[in-house]
Amino acid sequence: MNFINGNIVSPKGFQATGGFAGIKKQKNDLCLVYSSVPCKAAGMFTTNIVKAAPVLWDQELVNKGGAIHGLVVNSGNANACTGKQGIEDNRLMAEAFADQINAKPEEVLICSTGVIGQPMPMDAVQKGIREISSGLGGSYEDGKLASEAIMTTDTFIKAYAVQIELDGKTVTLGGMAKGSGMIHPNMATMLSFVTTDVNITKELLQKALRDTVEDTYHMISVDDDTSTNDTVLVLANGCAENPLISAEDERYHKFVKALGEINRKLAVDIARDGEGASKLIEATVTGAVSKKDAVKLAKSIISSSLFKAAMFGADANWGRALCAMGYSGGSFDPDKVSIAFRSGEKEILLMDVGNPVIFDEELALEILKNTHIYVDILLRDGDATATAWGCDLTYDYVKINGEYRS
Amino acid sequence: MNFINGNIVSPKGFQATGGFAGIKKQKNDLCLVYSSVPCKAAGMFTTNIVKAAPVLWDQELVNKGGAIHGLVVNSGNANACTGKQGIEDNRLMAEAFADQINAKPEEVLICSTGVIGQPMPMDAVQKGIREISSGLGGSYEDGKLASEAIMTTDTFIKAYAVQIELDGKTVTLGGMAKGSGMIHPNMATMLSFVTTDVNITKELLQKALRDTVEDTYHMISVDDDTSTNDTVLVLANGCAENPLISAEDERYHKFVKALGEINRKLAVDIARDGEGASKLIEATVTGAVSKKDAVKLAKSIISSSLFKAAMFGADANWGRALCAMGYSGGSFDPDKVSIAFRSGEKEILLMDVGNPVIFDEELALEILKNTHIYVDILLRDGDATATAWGCDLTYDYVKINGEYRS
Repeated sequence: MNFINGNIVSPKGFQATGGFAGIKKQKNDLCLVYSSVPCKAAGMFTTNIVKAAPVLWDQELVNKGGAIHGLVVNSGNANACTGKQGIEDNRLMAEAFADQINAKPEEVLICSTGVIGQPMPMDAVQKGIREISSGLGGSYEDGKLASEAIMTTDTFIKAYAVQIELDGKTVTLGGMAKGSGMIHPNMATMLSFVTTDVNITKELLQKALRDTVEDTYHMISVDDDTSTNDTVLVLANGCAENPLISAEDERYHKFVKALGEINRKLAVDIARDGEGASKLIEATVTGAVSKKDAVKLAKSIISSSLFKAAMFGADANWGRALCAMGYSGGSFDPDKVSIAFRSGEKEILLMDVGNPVIFDEELALEILKNTHIYVDILLRDGDATATAWGCDLTYDYVKINGEYRS
Repeated sequence: MNFINGNIVSPKGFQATGGFAGIKKQKNDLCLVYSSVPCKAAGMFTTNIVKAAPVLWDQELVNKGGAIHGLVVNSGNANACTGKQGIEDNRLMAEAFADQINAKPEEVLICSTGVIGQPMPMDAVQKGIREISSGLGGSYEDGKLASEAIMTTDTFIKAYAVQIELDGKTVTLGGMAKGSGMIHPNMATMLSFVTTDVNITKELLQKALRDTVEDTYHMISVDDDTSTNDTVLVLANGCAENPLISAEDERYHKFVKALGEINRKLAVDIARDGEGASKLIEATVTGAVSKKDAVKLAKSIISSSLFKAAMFGADANWGRALCAMGYSGGSFDPDKVSIAFRSGEKEILLMDVGNPVIFDEELALEILKNTHIYVDILLRDGDATATAWGCDLTYDYVKINGEYRS
């Protein structure tokens, strides 16, 4: 497996672009992805009862399993809680792009992200799709424009590409994602897209996605809020011309590993770039009775507002991590727990087999002033392990979200 | 039922006081409550797996059902995650107060609140208990000293008293509570204490507590964090000399109603005084299929970081309330929902039977600038209703919790 300097246009046969349609005030807000060769699509979607119009649309198309040729992503408006008008607007978006690429509306997936509960400015959106389509291309810059246009309060582009060899053919996967706020994926995730030229059955593509999501997008949280629009899509057009992957053989596992790597990198980037975040928090629980328990415990730590605020303040308030484990629903014996903080090559033990350690506050401060903090939990209850990623809770999170619509 | 200007010493036979033992740097940190007449005690405690030493101690005493004569509450140190030493220190605290009031250690309940994971400064605590005991008294000022000494980051005293007539006898209930951070009670609550001179069986006292907690402490949240120390205790010494309440008759229900009222007032005060809070948010869900659904939906709204930040910014971002309902686990039909914000006599409709309303932003701003915001949700799915209380998420919450230990 080899990471390359690329993005969603790195796999053969994909084009993309991004531009300004006028949904946001100034920044680019429309992203288009196109494959002339028909794609198989796999998807996972939010479990929120309140599903945005594009989520309902994509779910239906992915389930039907027809060919996909295009993807439209807009930022600035989520087209969620928009009633019947939202459903209609979503269809019009698919039609507008289908017209440009000589496809049917049912061959175009749609994702929206931004403010909830406001009607889509359809004149601007339709005009934008028409005009921006002319920029579709396969260069690195084209892919970069696409990954820029899906950002809302994100502060950096999240895009990766990786290559593997399958039966002598080079298979490429490209990915991009947007995160930032309302991030607590549940059985799905925020907007994340992977293109690939692999040749694989639709069933195995969906299985590969499902298997890799568990340890990646499902293990991050910015603010415990599961969005109405969470979506992850994988488009595979087969252009790598590797013999079809149709069984869970070695080639399949090689592909899953590459997909897992790209999803993990995108997921961690989303946590790192959480709204207002100044630090990435990586909590690893080892020695749990079961994987399920390890997951609950690790996620509870990185989701605790109190612990997140302590990390922002570089305060070694490890008791808040233990407290968060205690109410997580995951089982463990508090009398056997050890807790350590780590960053770079420095590490500090805070709780040792259930007893608090008198620790060096200066060393703790030195560790917690870094931008990537590891929280290591050893339970001594069993063999299961899990890692979760989150971010600190800062003044800027409050500022961004107190003024989001203005 | 008649609210009087009183506190935990208003019921007959109770004395209290508060003072400075030196657990905190400056503020009073030790509270003592005493009844020479033996009390029946009812209690509910945190469901967090990690239970502080005093929680384990109180749980055992309340379950055993022996007579209780005293209560020691310290702030500044939670005596949680303190291992075996914590258990021993807790026992020493009970012994120290028992010595002063000629009781057995097993007749003294203990509660601690403050930093987690640090050893209790036992010299100061024991000396404090000895010295501060001499101030025990039954005046309003004595009760006030007690309710002041249990505060951590609380900004105001939470104390109430209420009187009812039972069989021609005046029965008084007095209550005090502390809240502020790590507030998301689950089958119990933060520290809250009710004294009463009612004459009632221990079983019915416990039942009365359990029944009133559901609609009061269980319906508030400041930050989704369930503490290691959550405790609510009711002490009843029978000094009102009403004939013993031993069945769920009219007198029992009159008592439950009074207990419910005092618990509701204390709970709402805790939400209002959430760490850094500038606004009280009161979310009421009506027309739900079941009470359970209504509870999940109402609590999810007041627990959402995104919605809380929007309330801080006076931003009418109602979509975040609907989104929070969607991931709450409570069932409802999004197409039938209406949402309104209200404060004082002003009200604004934002979503009407599943469709967004184009609303007057200025009126919304005028409403959201108040310090008590009502969020009214009408579901049209059934007859169940629930109200939950929370607060906004502010810069000060982050500030307080980024620097808590320093």
